[in-house]
Amino acid sequence: MNKNFEKLKDYMDKGIALSAAMGLFEWDNETLAPSAAIENTSKIMGILAKENHEALINDEVRELFAGLENAEDLTETEKLIVKKMQKEFKKLSAVTAKEYKDYNELTAKSANAWATAKENNDFSGFAPYLEKIIAFNKKTAKNRVEDRTSPYDVLLEDFEEGFTTEVLDKFFGELKEGILPLADKIKEKEDTVRADFLRKSYDIEKQKEFNRFIAEYIGFDFNKGVIAESEHPFTTGWHNNDVRITTHYYENMPESAIFSTIHESGHALYEMNVADKYTLSVLGGGTSMGVHESQSRFMENFIGRSKAFWEPVYPKLQEYFPENLKDISLDDFVKAVNRVEHGFIRTEADELTYSLHIIIRYEIEKQFMEGELDINEIPREWNKKYREYLGITPENVSEGVLQDIHWSQGSIGYFPSYALGNAFAAQFYHKMNEAFDVDEALRAGNIGRVTTWLRENIHQYGATKNATELLRDVTGEELNTKYYIDYLTKKYTKLYDL
Amino acid sequence: MNKNFEKLKDYMDKGIALSAAMGLFEWDNETLAPSAAIENTSKIMGILAKENHEALINDEVRELFAGLENAEDLTETEKLIVKKMQKEFKKLSAVTAKEYKDYNELTAKSANAWATAKENNDFSGFAPYLEKIIAFNKKTAKNRVEDRTSPYDVLLEDFEEGFTTEVLDKFFGELKEGILPLADKIKEKEDTVRADFLRKSYDIEKQKEFNRFIAEYIGFDFNKGVIAESEHPFTTGWHNNDVRITTHYYENMPESAIFSTIHESGHALYEMNVADKYTLSVLGGGTSMGVHESQSRFMENFIGRSKAFWEPVYPKLQEYFPENLKDISLDDFVKAVNRVEHGFIRTEADELTYSLHIIIRYEIEKQFMEGELDINEIPREWNKKYREYLGITPENVSEGVLQDIHWSQGSIGYFPSYALGNAFAAQFYHKMNEAFDVDEALRAGNIGRVTTWLRENIHQYGATKNATELLRDVTGEELNTKYYIDYLTKKYTKLYDL
Repeated sequence: MNKNFEKLKDYMDKGIALSAAMGLFEWDNETLAPSAAIENTSKIMGILAKENHEALINDEVRELFAGLENAEDLTETEKLIVKKMQKEFKKLSAVTAKEYKDYNELTAKSANAWATAKENNDFSGFAPYLEKIIAFNKKTAKNRVEDRTSPYDVLLEDFEEGFTTEVLDKFFGELKEGILPLADKIKEKEDTVRADFLRKSYDIEKQKEFNRFIAEYIGFDFNKGVIAESEHPFTTGWHNNDVRITTHYYENMPESAIFSTIHESGHALYEMNVADKYTLSVLGGGTSMGVHESQSRFMENFIGRSKAFWEPVYPKLQEYFPENLKDISLDDFVKAVNRVEHGFIRTEADELTYSLHIIIRYEIEKQFMEGELDINEIPREWNKKYREYLGITPENVSEGVLQDIHWSQGSIGYFPSYALGNAFAAQFYHKMNEAFDVDEALRAGNIGRVTTWLRENIHQYGATKNATELLRDVTGEELNTKYYIDYLTKKYTKLYDL
Repeated sequence: MNKNFEKLKDYMDKGIALSAAMGLFEWDNETLAPSAAIENTSKIMGILAKENHEALINDEVRELFAGLENAEDLTETEKLIVKKMQKEFKKLSAVTAKEYKDYNELTAKSANAWATAKENNDFSGFAPYLEKIIAFNKKTAKNRVEDRTSPYDVLLEDFEEGFTTEVLDKFFGELKEGILPLADKIKEKEDTVRADFLRKSYDIEKQKEFNRFIAEYIGFDFNKGVIAESEHPFTTGWHNNDVRITTHYYENMPESAIFSTIHESGHALYEMNVADKYTLSVLGGGTSMGVHESQSRFMENFIGRSKAFWEPVYPKLQEYFPENLKDISLDDFVKAVNRVEHGFIRTEADELTYSLHIIIRYEIEKQFMEGELDINEIPREWNKKYREYLGITPENVSEGVLQDIHWSQGSIGYFPSYALGNAFAAQFYHKMNEAFDVDEALRAGNIGRVTTWLRENIHQYGATKNATELLRDVTGEELNTKYYIDYLTKKYTKLYDL
């Protein structure tokens, strides 16, 4: 092994271990840690972040990169590792170790402050944290701005290489054009789909059992993973043999847990299926947030909300809840979980209006990152945009601007990943259907064909290809919104008999 | 603040954060992590251990110690921190960062190997790990041997300053002299105490509820702590606002969970009650393993097995399990949970024979540390000693040499802490009774008097005093076995009407 690379690998290992520790603390904070712990624990997390920073941003690593510039004895994987680390180096260099420590301490506390503010329906309890988080992101993004990019572009590209506001403005424009007319037409027919049976009482313990079953059915391997509960469902993990998801159970809304379990299992399969040779390296996770969301939203929607998927599975759900479902047909159930609702909550949104929720967040982020929106104006702007795009006004901040955890964790520029994920997923779905009849496989209970295709074409490669490279290799073209619009149009025209 | 101390504090903070991360991974491995995770996770833990080593063992720290040697502007707390760090420095210096990394990777894996070997009743599955662990401890302890101490002394003093084999040989000699005649006399009367009602079926969910109640009753603060389940009950934590215990439930042995919950809660109260000014520093935990066990065994036995404790609590237990306990009197219950049984399992042992289990482990550790016992001979030696001290022969290694997790975690020299803990506890108990009538307080349900006394006299000081200093400050004398022997003699003479 190249001597410089060997030394660089030590730094990588250190970063991997420290990130894993931070990830475990985050998981623990969200799922288990006692309420009084956060103040002290956030100090610990700040120190770990500082160590993580110093493991990469130091003179020896800088010299190692220089020494490796024209090295000819690196394997392809080694080259990709160096490239990935250089990218991270550039990103972290924009901030000092001390700033990074303070920021991580802040975001650790901030997630708690957000949860409390949401519970108390009080934006002012979260605003000071959000203000600091935005200020930090603005400042550090400015240090990284290059030709033709803005600070917001810098953040967007952290989540999705190449997807700047220029690309996204066009992308969201196409989505609006495709979705809004469809959504408007359906709005008049919204109450033609019944969902009353989903508002009955569903025993939480039974829900847990069913969710475990459904995760396993999809391919979630409990030898390599854990399911727990948290306020906001999420996926995390530190290597391909330890991947964790959470869900959240509501007694009168069983589909909430079911589809978040399927969604997070989609993320989890991606992480579990990364090839062993990449795990515990910087190439060991999903390649980008957009591709990650393409996997989770693929599983949740393209697969999980299809009639074909439920054909072998729905009888099982009926067995768990006969009192509520024995007289409900498969068709009625599938219609109910696909019904369009112009609602407030993104995570509960149907496939059609989902992207509208994202557009709102994208536009607001763009505004406050470009200094056109003061923190205290965000709730009003939020409500204004909900009226504009969905025709409804949130009654309070809990179901408005405070509904999402992302900003409290410092994730600004993340939201577009969900919409990109939808579009990527539609492209993968189209391609998969060329390989075999997906519905036929699902109807036969043979979901393994789907997950095998995903593993072979996407998952195994971890972070070795970026989204555009992956799309090109798998589908032969780059981002193309057409597939997603076509899919939505076909699906909802049929469902609502338009 | 002294500039050198300020710099040293950064290294301390780093060590604290890395230790916390390692502690969280250990907790997670024992309570939640998926089965396939350990191989990769142990690599992460090895790297964190290496970082932890390098955070202390480096030239700058060495110079800082030199610069602080005659510093006159340090507070008392700062002086104690320097002293404690120097002790740790000396200990860690005996091993290179690489060796330390490998060793921690080994012990992370080894705890799993132990669990599997125990389950399969197969010593050979664990022997290779034990061999490496012993070899490492021998080698590194040899580097630290000073005048008149042996490698085993070095390990013993890691857990209890000043308690070398010379002191412990005398201590265990006194215990034997006091306990063996008493235990022999009772052996003939063992079957006079009924415990059949404890072998009925006790619903696990109800047990969990009761254990939660009992922990809270003792003073375990769920805002600052968590209870989970693991094969081997233990306590851990990273600061005074995050302390965690585990227990293990058996359907036909409810007292197992109850007394391990009380035991671990005793540990937890110690950690939770350390003063805020010491937490997140090297003074922030319990001062030694012996003192820690004095707190856990105090709660478990002196308090938790007393009739006075159960007077207000037993009716609650009867409410939970009326079908098993409604006709069992308080006296019969208390007798049953105090009955002497010459059994195989240390953690299930009564107070009287408990120390015999410890003597056996002490003698075996001494033998293999002094090279007088080969790894493969340990099971035979174990059984021989069980015949000698308890008159019984384990039928298999699961209930013999493989019953304890300690060696798999690298804890050699830990076991004497339990016996020392018993003796310390008896001294504290004697002193507490001079301050107020303990039984009277317990009968009145006023256990807060007990925990307040412990907090004020012991817990709040964290690691600022070693065991001997603490004993002296609290009781006015050093280790004195008399109190423990007197307590046992009085208790068991009465219980068995000798």
